[in-house]
Parts: sequence; C-alpha cells; structure tokens
Amino acid sequence: MPIDERSRRRANLAAMASPLITFISDFGLDDWFVGVVHGVLLERCPEARIVDLTHAIPPGDIVRAAFVLEAAAPDFPPGAVHLAVVDPGVGTDRRALAVHARGQWFVGPDNGVLEWALSDAAAEARELTETRNFRLPVSRTFHGRDVFAPVAAALASGARGDSLGPRISDPVRLAGPRARLAAAGARASARLEGIIAYIDRFGNALTNLDERAISAAFPGARERDLEVHAGGRVIAGLARSYGDAPVGTVVAVIGSSGRLEVAQVGGAADVRLGLGAGDEVFIVRRV
Amino acid sequence: MPIDERSRRRANLAAMASPLITFISDFGLDDWFVGVVHGVLLERCPEARIVDLTHAIPPGDIVRAAFVLEAAAPDFPPGAVHLAVVDPGVGTDRRALAVHARGQWFVGPDNGVLEWALSDAAAEARELTETRNFRLPVSRTFHGRDVFAPVAAALASGARGDSLGPRISDPVRLAGPRARLAAAGARASARLEGIIAYIDRFGNALTNLDERAISAAFPGARERDLEVHAGGRVIAGLARSYGDAPVGTVVAVIGSSGRLEVAQVGGAADVRLGLGAGDEVFIVRRV
Amino acid sequence: MPIDERSRRRANLAAMASPLITFISDFGLDDWFVGVVHGVLLERCPEARIVDLTHAIPPGDIVRAAFVLEAAAPDFPPGAVHLAVVDPGVGTDRRALAVHARGQWFVGPDNGVLEWALSDAAAEARELTETRNFRLPVSRTFHGRDVFAPVAAALASGARGDSLGPRISDPVRLAGPRARLAAAGARASARLEGIIAYIDRFGNALTNLDERAISAAFPGARERDLEVHAGGRVIAGLARSYGDAPVGTVVAVIGSSGRLEVAQVGGAADVRLGLGAGDEVFIVRRV
Repeated sequence: MPIDERSRRRANLAAMASPLITFISDFGLDDWFVGVVHGVLLERCPEARIVDLTHAIPPGDIVRAAFVLEAAAPDFPPGAVHLAVVDPGVGTDRRALAVHARGQWFVGPDNGVLEWALSDAAAEARELTETRNFRLPVSRTFHGRDVFAPVAAALASGARGDSLGPRISDPVRLAGPRARLAAAGARASARLEGIIAYIDRFGNALTNLDERAISAAFPGARERDLEVHAGGRVIAGLARSYGDAPVGTVVAVIGSSGRLEVAQVGGAADVRLGLGAGDEVFIVRRV
Repeated sequence: MPIDERSRRRANLAAMASPLITFISDFGLDDWFVGVVHGVLLERCPEARIVDLTHAIPPGDIVRAAFVLEAAAPDFPPGAVHLAVVDPGVGTDRRALAVHARGQWFVGPDNGVLEWALSDAAAEARELTETRNFRLPVSRTFHGRDVFAPVAAALASGARGDSLGPRISDPVRLAGPRARLAAAGARASARLEGIIAYIDRFGNALTNLDERAISAAFPGARERDLEVHAGGRVIAGLARSYGDAPVGTVVAVIGSSGRLEVAQVGGAADVRLGLGAGDEVFIVRRV
Repeated sequence: MPIDERSRRRANLAAMASPLITFISDFGLDDWFVGVVHGVLLERCPEARIVDLTHAIPPGDIVRAAFVLEAAAPDFPPGAVHLAVVDPGVGTDRRALAVHARGQWFVGPDNGVLEWALSDAAAEARELTETRNFRLPVSRTFHGRDVFAPVAAALASGARGDSLGPRISDPVRLAGPRARLAAAGARASARLEGIIAYIDRFGNALTNLDERAISAAFPGARERDLEVHAGGRVIAGLARSYGDAPVGTVVAVIGSSGRLEVAQVGGAADVRLGLGAGDEVFIVRRV
C-alpha cells in the first residue's frame, strides 16, 4: 500500500468513530427536503454528526454554493464529508461525483459546485456509477435523497473511493474570475485586481483576493501601506479588525476565511457603498 | 405475546440504539421554542438523533403540516418517532395523541395534524393521559415542551403505547379533498380529478394525485399517453424528470414522494402558470 | 474540596457523558458561520449535542439575544453550556467571558449578552485569557469560531473554570427596565408597571412581569381579580390559556417561561393592539 493511501486510511479510521458530514443545498427550510436527507444520512450512518452549512442558496445558484463550500470546508477536520446538493440538472444525464481532495470528501452533482475540491491538483474525482450505494429505486427528481446522501453516508462509514465508480479526468469546472496582477499606470507598481464575490449577512463585501495573493503582489508591504479601491471609492488602508475604527468607518480587513473584505464598523458596507457581487475591487500600494 | 406485538417490539429495540425523532412545528426559527423542545428531547433521550422537518408551517396551518408529514414520514425507517406540534388549541380541552401506524410513532395534538398516521387502517391511537410522562408542571401554552416532546422522548426510549393512556377510536380526521375518478364527456373515458395541494420552494405544484391512483385510473397507459390539465392549461404529457425538456418548458412529473407535480424546467411553475394550493388538476388519456 | 465545588463537579461529570451545548447568535442561516461553529464544537467535543436556540437575532442586537437566553436557559438541565455570540465589538479590546451561574455555563463576549447569568448573585465570571483553549491563530473578525466555540467545547468536555482565565468582578451589565411597583391613585392600591419586552412568532407580546412579581404585588389575588392594561387598553383579566376564550378575544396569560403575555386567541395580539417592544404595561386589582 503506498504511503499516502495508508495515511489517508488512517485519517479515515480516526474520522469514522464520529464522522462529520456537512450539508449545503438550495432546498430552503420551508419544505421537508433537508429533513429527509438528514434521515437518510442517519439511517445509513447512525454515528454521523451532521452540520448544516446553509440551505438558503437561491435555487440553482451553483456559483454561490461553490463559494460557501470553499469558505467553509477548510475549517473542518480531515475526514469530513461535504454533501453539496445544488442540482438544477437532476434527472438529466449530468454525472454524479465524489471527489477526494485536501483530506476530505466532497459529494455532489458534476456541475461545478465542487470547484473547491477540484481546484486541488491532487484531487481524485469519481463518477458515482455503483448503484448498490444508492437508495433504490432512484427517483427522477431527488438525487439528494437517493444518490448523494447515501454515498456521503457510505463514505462517512469508511467506504473506499474505488467502491463508488471509476475515476474521471474531466469533471465540470467553474470558470470564475480569478485575482489578476496588473501593472498600475506609469509608476509600474503592482495593481491586484479582483471582484466582490459574496455579500454576507452583516453587509460585508467578501472579495476573491486572499491573504496569499496580497502578500505575493506586495512583498514586504505592511497593511497600512496598501490602499483598497471598491465601488469607485478608496478604502483607507487595511485595518486589523472591524472594531479598530469609529462606528460608521468603512474598513478593509482580512476576514475569517482569509479573504479581503470591505466592511463598515457597526453597519452594512454593501448598502453604504452600493456594493454587490461582481463589482470590481483592486489594491495598490499607497503613494 | 401475539406475533405482531413481538415484531413491533423487535423493531422498537433495533431503533432504540439510536432512535430517530423528527420534529415539525409552526414555531419558526426566530424564537427559542424549537431549541427548548430539542433540549427536552435530548435530556430525556440522550441517544436520540433529532431531524427537523420544518418549522416554517404558518401559525396554526394544520393542513399544511399534515401534508408535509405525509410527504416525509415514508422516507424514515421503522421505529422513527414523528413529533408534530401545530397546536392552535393548546390549553383547551383538545386531546393529545400518540398514534402507532405504518411501523412508526406519531405524537401531536388531536386536531388532524396526524392524518397520515390515522389514515392507516391498522393505526393505534392513544390519548395522552398518563401525566407521569409529562414535564411537570404542564404550562398552559407550551405543550410542545411539556407534553408532546416528553412523550416522544419516552417512545424513542422504548416506552410501550399502553403506558401513555387509553386507546381511542374517534380521533379528529382531516376531511381533505381526495382524488376522484370521473367519466370524461361523451367518450366516457376516465378523468382523474384532484387538486394542487402544495407549492414547494422551487415553485413546483404538488398535486394530491399519486402514482397508484394514476395507474389504477389508466391501466396500461404509458406516461406519454396521459394529458395533465392544470390552471386551465394542458401540460404536454408526463415527463421522466425536470431535465428532459428545454429550459422554460412546463412539465408534469411523478415527484420524489410519488405525487404528480407540475414543474417548469429551470423555473417556477407556480409563477409561470399562476397556480396555487387548491387549484383543480385533472388527467385524461390523450386522444 | 468545599461541598458546592464537589456537587458542581458531580453535576459536571453527569453532564459530560452527553453534554448539551446551546448556541444563539446573530449569524443568520444564509452564510456558513453557524455551520463552522458547529464543526469546531464537534471536532473538540465529539460527544456534544448542539441545540440551536436561534440565529435570527438582528445583527448586534444584544438586548434581544439576552432576552432569548433568559427565556430559554432555565429549560435546560444543569451542566448545559450556553454559547452566545452577538459580538459587534469583535476585534476590539472588549473582553471574552465564561460565566458559571445557576448550575450552567454561559460563554460569550463581555457586552451584556450574558445578563441572565450575571444576574445570579452567585455567578462566577471569568475572563477568557488562556489562549491554549482557543483555535489558533485567532482571526480578527470571527471569535465565535476561534475563541467562544473552543471554550464552550472545553467546558462541555469537563474543563474547570480556573483553566480559562482569572475571575473578574466587573462584567458589563445590561441596565434594562425592571418591573416597578407603584401606588395606584387615591385608592393607594398596588400598580405593577413593566414593559413589553419581546414579540414572538405568534404575535404574543411578552412582558417583563413574571409570576413571582405579580404574586408579590397582589398577595392572595386570584387571576380574575387582576386587570392588565397594555397599549392603552384594558385586557379583561388573566386567562388560564390562549384557548379558554372565543377566537379573536384578547387575553393576558402567564406564558410558558413564567412571564405575563398579551395574546389574541387565534390571532396576533401585536397587530390587533398595535403593540411593540418597549410599550408600557401595568396590572391593577380590579375594582
């Protein structure tokens, strides 16, 4: 057995005692769909502990679900199983996937929702073809219950990837905008460009610019040396937290998932600045 | 001990190791009521795993809660305990019930919310009179916490039905509209009539016509032979899934709980067709 | 070891087998924050059972969160750990606390959200300074994940208070309006004054007048002897439950958490009477 297969199995065994399954969907909480998926998970893996990430993804919004999964998954331990069901193509011939990446499993439709897992160069993607893992008969419209949940429960119970189906090399990828480093005008100093990727409950505008990209673009720069531009406005330098500045101040901070966020102390930055997902953001060194 | 009492106890024992309790209510998620009920369940049955079906039932909407329970309960294993608290009559002399039906227990007020259980000819309904199962003193306004949750926890812990109170033969029933088979005009071919019973998160219009009623009404018919009418409009035949037809197409499918649904591929059929709960639906054989 | 330290440890040991952690926040359910906190709790205390009280507290509304915690905590058993994260000052130098009171632990920021615990004369408040309990590195903006959840998990796993940090004597207190007993006009009979503290999902207006204050103000009075005034209107005496009077009647009842509530049978009293949080309420003896 190769070393990494062995260490992977050891991690799997440790997680098996009380496996964590996260669950994200666009099911909402008004109907019974989330509950039924919990039931299938617990019937097939009674020792699982289920963590709902969110079920408020707008129907079919694959990009938003992929963002949430990317933001949340790194906070979970190795061996965690992430179940992601945003599946507008249910019942068509879109494939069903399980992806092993970054020490965790990700289960969902092959439509880009698992982009975070697939962006790992060492990801192992498998098409779910082995129907013995499914809840039979498989319905036409609820693969969350009949395909994805049973497979997630099997993985949480210690099933091996090769029991699910063949490896595939061409999963659907999300072609989202990435951070881009450009020269900034005549001074030829760096300009790191990105977008606002997500507005959270508190009106914070989360960008796709993370700590690593910022450090790489501006080596040696201290936070106060950098100037963040968003919504046609200069945000006055990076702050250490929401709370350093007086109430009402707009600040740019590295948020809890390592991304640059534009926030307003004691308020909602999205409303204050008219920011929305997709808006341009960039960072330059302060002159 | 009679055979079915013995097999029931065996199923109960199997479920006892890690019993499943589902919970549906009209409590919403803004206050603390759902949390407190979870607390009572877990204090009295620490090994229980609780599955929230939904708490977004509009206050007092017994019919909607009964529909959700009917749609969800069959997806849970034998031995599951379903706690249903939509209880506009709390504090009056309405009775409290536990009903054993279809291999599961159902606990809630005697106001029709347990219709799915009561529609089983073999249902055993018991009035909850044994106060030693209750959380004392019983409040005037929160029997979810003080009566229903403790009894659900007791059942999940293996309590016998006869420890709860006497059998009753006259529980309150919901007199909802049922599917009806009529002759369709001069051709005297069958016409299966029903209603739209529920609009789900995705705008799918779920009817009260199920697979069995359709097969019985149109023996030998293939899906494409049938014509579904809803909202004064012909839906072009039954489809295999939401995804077979181009985006925007309105389709009629057998949904995941076995009911006929009217759906729009990639959209919300209820908005598109102006459909709402209570609207008439019928199926005829295509000419 | 002093007696009460010994009995406290015994209660802790009993609760350790399957410890209950409640969780209240202003995170909402649309993002991934609640899920990530669950993940930290379960990674560090796999045997914990987590109960969500609510996450719909409006951003930064400390008063509302404190009210919900006060309403819910008494329904949980000794040894329960309550995690309360409404933390507009995250990242500033506001302190982080764990408070042992009424046989339970309460963990959250030092901003008044733990008022229910602190109002116990025997409360033991500790500042969270021991970083070995934290999730490192501690982020600037998400102490729910990095400080409060790890400490709550440690307490649920049996950690002692003195392992968290030093006792403090000056935690931030909420100076909410308290019930007040006044003389009522010439007759000099008692008049118990309070406010509407909370409107619940059902439109019930919960006051800050509890059963004990009412009994003390009107010794020997029966419910029907008392007259409740709210929103400039006389509510006709205390009722035994919502259900005694005909639909549409406005009633005053002692609710499930022991507080006087103004309710409308089969309707929403807040809409009917135009009541809102902060409105004056008083009780006098009927003439």
